[in-house]
Amino acid sequence: MSIEKIILSEKFAQIGDFWNPRIAGELNQQQVKLAKFKGEFIWHHHEHEDELFLVIDGSFQMELRDKTITVSAGEFLIIPRGVEHRPVAREEVQVLMFEPATTVNTGGLENELTRHRLEKI
Amino acid sequence: MSIEKIILSEKFAQIGDFWNPRIAGELNQQQVKLAKFKGEFIWHHHEHEDELFLVIDGSFQMELRDKTITVSAGEFLIIPRGVEHRPVAREEVQVLMFEPATTVNTGGLENELTRHRLEKI
Repeated sequence: MSIEKIILSEKFAQIGDFWNPRIAGELNQQQVKLAKFKGEFIWHHHEHEDELFLVIDGSFQMELRDKTITVSAGEFLIIPRGVEHRPVAREEVQVLMFEPATTVNTGGLENELTRHRLEKI
Repeated sequence: MSIEKIILSEKFAQIGDFWNPRIAGELNQQQVKLAKFKGEFIWHHHEHEDELFLVIDGSFQMELRDKTITVSAGEFLIIPRGVEHRPVAREEVQVLMFEPATTVNTGGLENELTRHRLEKI
């Protein structure tokens, strides 16, 4: 087993699309995912998984049903299971997510944004 | 339940000691911990937990038995369970850790550095 560090800027440089998380690490049945967001995602929730969003570069708005939270570089937000949310990014933003390996990006919804098999990066 | 973002710089500004992780978030039986490192920690390993170290500011060396990896801001390292490691920081470094709630900082060892009950921050 080779233990190597992950340089986030190198990984993000390889990501050319939006809303398509890549797996950058795995531990304790959890995954570290990297994605770029731009534009509006869809309203969704995860029945059984809490999700963490840590912004590495840029800023996005997490819309909840009762408020909107702006999350910028150096800030993170945890969305508990069951809570409806919709990420919206006016400009490109680099986001690191921590969540169980079982988490599907669109939660209980299935559409063209859904990614079941994530690439490793 | 109140959903609020965490601003890492605000949290780290409240930490005045070293090697004493605080809990900044919890999800999926995992915890997000924040700590400042400075100096040499001890060799240890975790029998059942993988550990992630993401550097927010500064740089440290993770010594393994067969090599040393320098981890700097914007980089992360996962230490798989069972692997002996020792973090060493020449200068103060801000580190975010992600690991199961059961993880004790000194692994299977118990000494003056051991922290069983972590404060929330």
